[in-house]
Amino acid sequence: MDKITLGPMPYMSVMPTVLVGANVKGKANYMTAAWATVACMAPPMVCVALNKARYTAKGIEENKSFSLNIPSAQHVVETDHCGLVSGSQEDKSKVFTSFYGKLKTVPLAKECPVNIECKLFSEVDCGSHVLYVGEVVEIHADKACLTDGKPDVAKIHPIVYSQATYFDIGKPVEKAFSAGKKYTKK
Amino acid sequence: MDKITLGPMPYMSVMPTVLVGANVKGKANYMTAAWATVACMAPPMVCVALNKARYTAKGIEENKSFSLNIPSAQHVVETDHCGLVSGSQEDKSKVFTSFYGKLKTVPLAKECPVNIECKLFSEVDCGSHVLYVGEVVEIHADKACLTDGKPDVAKIHPIVYSQATYFDIGKPVEKAFSAGKKYTKK
Repeated sequence: MDKITLGPMPYMSVMPTVLVGANVKGKANYMTAAWATVACMAPPMVCVALNKARYTAKGIEENKSFSLNIPSAQHVVETDHCGLVSGSQEDKSKVFTSFYGKLKTVPLAKECPVNIECKLFSEVDCGSHVLYVGEVVEIHADKACLTDGKPDVAKIHPIVYSQATYFDIGKPVEKAFSAGKKYTKK
Repeated sequence: MDKITLGPMPYMSVMPTVLVGANVKGKANYMTAAWATVACMAPPMVCVALNKARYTAKGIEENKSFSLNIPSAQHVVETDHCGLVSGSQEDKSKVFTSFYGKLKTVPLAKECPVNIECKLFSEVDCGSHVLYVGEVVEIHADKACLTDGKPDVAKIHPIVYSQATYFDIGKPVEKAFSAGKKYTKK
């Protein structure tokens, strides 16, 4: 395998597509993001990186809370719309139906099968972007998307993001914490 | 859609499978992780959450640098092995062939189509896990995995992680920054 260098870039292979929810000036707003992951097991935390200029960032700063909503592939048009248009230019509060959970300051998108409700724990100023770390205070999920009480990607149809394209999740390759048992030392 | 609450959990829909590379006590070590994403555009940064007890965490602290290596589905057994076994119990330096890039303190796994070489920028103590934020100093990639000079998931075959299972990436659903133009206001 011949390697070449591509220079420093903000690269990641595959990412989740999420809608970051925040109230801005008292109104629900959702923006599309992919730079999100889990940050901690105990207490449970997630993080998401947002450009400092984003309207949603103002809402997170204002309410010290945010939500990560997992859209289904069936809502890919609405989801992408929330990434194309800023809440500063257009009221996006009606793109999804908002409901409120434990915190009363964070809108959750009803049409999204899973909603992660977070209290701001920490923020890292990285340059163009701020990495917001939130403690998960509650997970809301559609009953229809659960298998044995847990969110199931086969029912959620989450949107995988990579190279400016939305993908479906593919077929299972192997079970984690199991496939490695087949490894034989070189 | 009937919603129910599942309690606070470290949930994310889909995640990338990466191998976190670090030298520990002068020896290359790789551990499997999925809690990773991009943290910043300019300068380019990525982040990864590791349990504090992890052997790899010692190496990151020691060298103030780490790598995120993107394995192909063809290396799923080796990849899972690096998540099953700790470097404190077994020498994992031979699971992949290591090479070194700009920083001389960070091992990169040759068999992985993309290698992200990082200098530690910040760390967030979240509880059980530390979120390591690294500035990308170089991206190394297999020539064979590029299309128009950019890493291409169709050639990389990255491993999508969700609910303790490794998945293939599926079919493209829509183009981002484009599909949303079909949205009509409610």
